[in-house]
Amino acid sequence: MRSKGQLIVISGPSGAGKGTVCEALLKKNDFWISVSATTRSPRNAEIEGINYYFISREEFLERIKSKDFLEYAEVYGNCYGTPKSEVLKVLESGRDVILEIDIQGALKVKLAYPNGLFIFILPPSMEELRNRITNRGSETPESLMTRFASAHEEISFVSKYDYAVVNDTVDSACEKIQSIVIAERCRVDRMNGDFLKEEIINE
Amino acid sequence: MRSKGQLIVISGPSGAGKGTVCEALLKKNDFWISVSATTRSPRNAEIEGINYYFISREEFLERIKSKDFLEYAEVYGNCYGTPKSEVLKVLESGRDVILEIDIQGALKVKLAYPNGLFIFILPPSMEELRNRITNRGSETPESLMTRFASAHEEISFVSKYDYAVVNDTVDSACEKIQSIVIAERCRVDRMNGDFLKEEIINE
Repeated sequence: MRSKGQLIVISGPSGAGKGTVCEALLKKNDFWISVSATTRSPRNAEIEGINYYFISREEFLERIKSKDFLEYAEVYGNCYGTPKSEVLKVLESGRDVILEIDIQGALKVKLAYPNGLFIFILPPSMEELRNRITNRGSETPESLMTRFASAHEEISFVSKYDYAVVNDTVDSACEKIQSIVIAERCRVDRMNGDFLKEEIINE
Repeated sequence: MRSKGQLIVISGPSGAGKGTVCEALLKKNDFWISVSATTRSPRNAEIEGINYYFISREEFLERIKSKDFLEYAEVYGNCYGTPKSEVLKVLESGRDVILEIDIQGALKVKLAYPNGLFIFILPPSMEELRNRITNRGSETPESLMTRFASAHEEISFVSKYDYAVVNDTVDSACEKIQSIVIAERCRVDRMNGDFLKEEIINE
């Protein structure tokens, strides 16, 4: 039997709905979601320790120095990082871990953990993506344009991922991700040789 | 959009429960199952055109000559073959096709169609496998021993497959296979470049 959980990286362009999909996944599954540290200010309903650990730029730089991040990146002038020891501890316990991170971060995690499960969330259309970013209401016209242009470019990174899931409805996106997680557990190249010995040759 | 269905190859040792799993899959999904041609005699409840096309050895050899099989093999002195044109027609129409075949056949299909989805059905244990083969009641003591020894050896071929599904219960095996099919549709390396253009860049 595999003793380790799966690292499930949920990523994609800004506005594709990563956050909503992850929330729904957590309600239905025993996944553990990694909470990132960030130097940006909290948005309206965001809670410290639930959505992010909100820390100062000084503390962030200090933790980079002490190699305390699985990955970190600067996006739109703010720093985001994934605390390393938390994630590794949960994976080691056998529980699956979700990382909801931007594309820069995901590609860095992929270099360090190529066995992770890299899922790219796609918006159903570019028009829908524009609507979602606009309706978020937390953006200035300038940051809106920056985000939208960036999202357009980011979608081209889908080719670096294992799976692409179109977020047409949250339920269908969740169902697909759950299927991906189940399927990956059945992949022969993820099973170690002991699987056969323990499970089958037990007569 | 992908115009072609997926070729789902369900294989594994004799007695692992391939047939029962495929029956259950067909009840719940719009899969099309390929009916093999064979030179062996029908077992009790088997129906011509549903379980197999029962044909003579002469006809079988004739159809080999005219390259009318996707794969064929001789197992325990009987010939089995998968009619080629049927399968290709259904795949081309966009419907997923199940091939329930022995390991020799599956490995030949893999050479011809490496993009197929190769799923190996494992019995929950070797003891359970022995019980299943014994309880089938259609075997002589000699053919029983042959089948069991062969099943033991066949299990080592799991490494040639993409996925391994333990058939502990039919429902759980079906659920895993359905997840595998859904997950494979989301694999980035199975999507062609047009996917993004048609689905996303449609503003």
